[in-house]
Amino acid sequence: MTSLVRSVSESTVRRLSLYLRTLERLQAEGAETVASGDLADRAGTTAAQVRKDLSSFGSFGTRGLGYRVGPLHARIREILGLTRPWRVVLVGAGRIGSALFAYPHFRERGFRIEAILDSDPAKIGGVWEGVTIQSAAHLEQVLARAEAEILILAVPAGAAQELAERAAAAGVRGILNFAPVRLRLPDEVEVNNVNLAVELEALSHALVLAEVQG
Amino acid sequence: MTSLVRSVSESTVRRLSLYLRTLERLQAEGAETVASGDLADRAGTTAAQVRKDLSSFGSFGTRGLGYRVGPLHARIREILGLTRPWRVVLVGAGRIGSALFAYPHFRERGFRIEAILDSDPAKIGGVWEGVTIQSAAHLEQVLARAEAEILILAVPAGAAQELAERAAAAGVRGILNFAPVRLRLPDEVEVNNVNLAVELEALSHALVLAEVQG
Repeated sequence: MTSLVRSVSESTVRRLSLYLRTLERLQAEGAETVASGDLADRAGTTAAQVRKDLSSFGSFGTRGLGYRVGPLHARIREILGLTRPWRVVLVGAGRIGSALFAYPHFRERGFRIEAILDSDPAKIGGVWEGVTIQSAAHLEQVLARAEAEILILAVPAGAAQELAERAAAAGVRGILNFAPVRLRLPDEVEVNNVNLAVELEALSHALVLAEVQG
Repeated sequence: MTSLVRSVSESTVRRLSLYLRTLERLQAEGAETVASGDLADRAGTTAAQVRKDLSSFGSFGTRGLGYRVGPLHARIREILGLTRPWRVVLVGAGRIGSALFAYPHFRERGFRIEAILDSDPAKIGGVWEGVTIQSAAHLEQVLARAEAEILILAVPAGAAQELAERAAAAGVRGILNFAPVRLRLPDEVEVNNVNLAVELEALSHALVLAEVQG
């Protein structure tokens, strides 16, 4: 792979993702360059933050002209691992799984959900846009056949650890985990947790804090 | 409100939320005390981190016995703003909105979705578990009637800013935003963004990085 990818903080990765979306809108508008201040405004941050985030990835700017949209877009795609498709298997055909399967931004970015698994006999055999829901009992075989690199885990908390362990043993490299539980896995497996209840609780904390301080 | 709520970092809030879930499991098991190491193991962190996170909220520990489960649970609920119900309005009756509406952990925590809005005539008038989907044109009236404090925004990027501005003007205090766009709102409105594409991109970044370093 490229030696130009380097470790950046999680918050930087999240901003890069927003810059990428902004650059795509600029490309659609026909813009060839963008000032750091304009990029910052559109991405909801400051010009100084933009310059800091981008300074470590090479020179895309010309003083007075701003960043070149095309090359910067290409570089951020490379850093985020979006220059190639990713083979994804979804475990959990419930409402969250259904929303993720249909989420257009995953497909646009090259994340391809190759297979869907569930443990509910009422769901197994169902078909979502041509993809048949298979039994989670066959996780290992499905992962092997799909050559899956990423697992999206959208199952209840009680089922997550066992499925994650089996997927890790079968060679999955990354897990996007929506189950409200911390997974314990070998260090070489990357896990990113999305806990929707935590997101709402972070908001309610902020609101009670504002009441105290206000 | 309580003067015992103080500002903690976002990462601390997220860990507190995990401790809370762990304490609930411990209560269900009948445990009255828990060692910091045990709490750390179950929440996926270290004993030192647990002690650091909890030290600023008062004394819940007895040397050799650990933390008292009940009082610590009550204190974390207070810090996270979970000792009261929150009135929530959901805008966006698509797949993500549907998944959020049915998400059991929101209800358990006291987040009550009082109304659902959408701008699609095909969805307006539909009924989800007794809640009728109303037109987003009536956002202000619906928010007032529900006395809504929190808005969950699960709409396409292009529709989010206008709806958020209207909700803010109508007095909503917090927004959980699933639209892949940064909202520009008055400072007194708390916004928490959940961008599912960013979560997957953070994972793909980590995977390409592992390839380079591995």
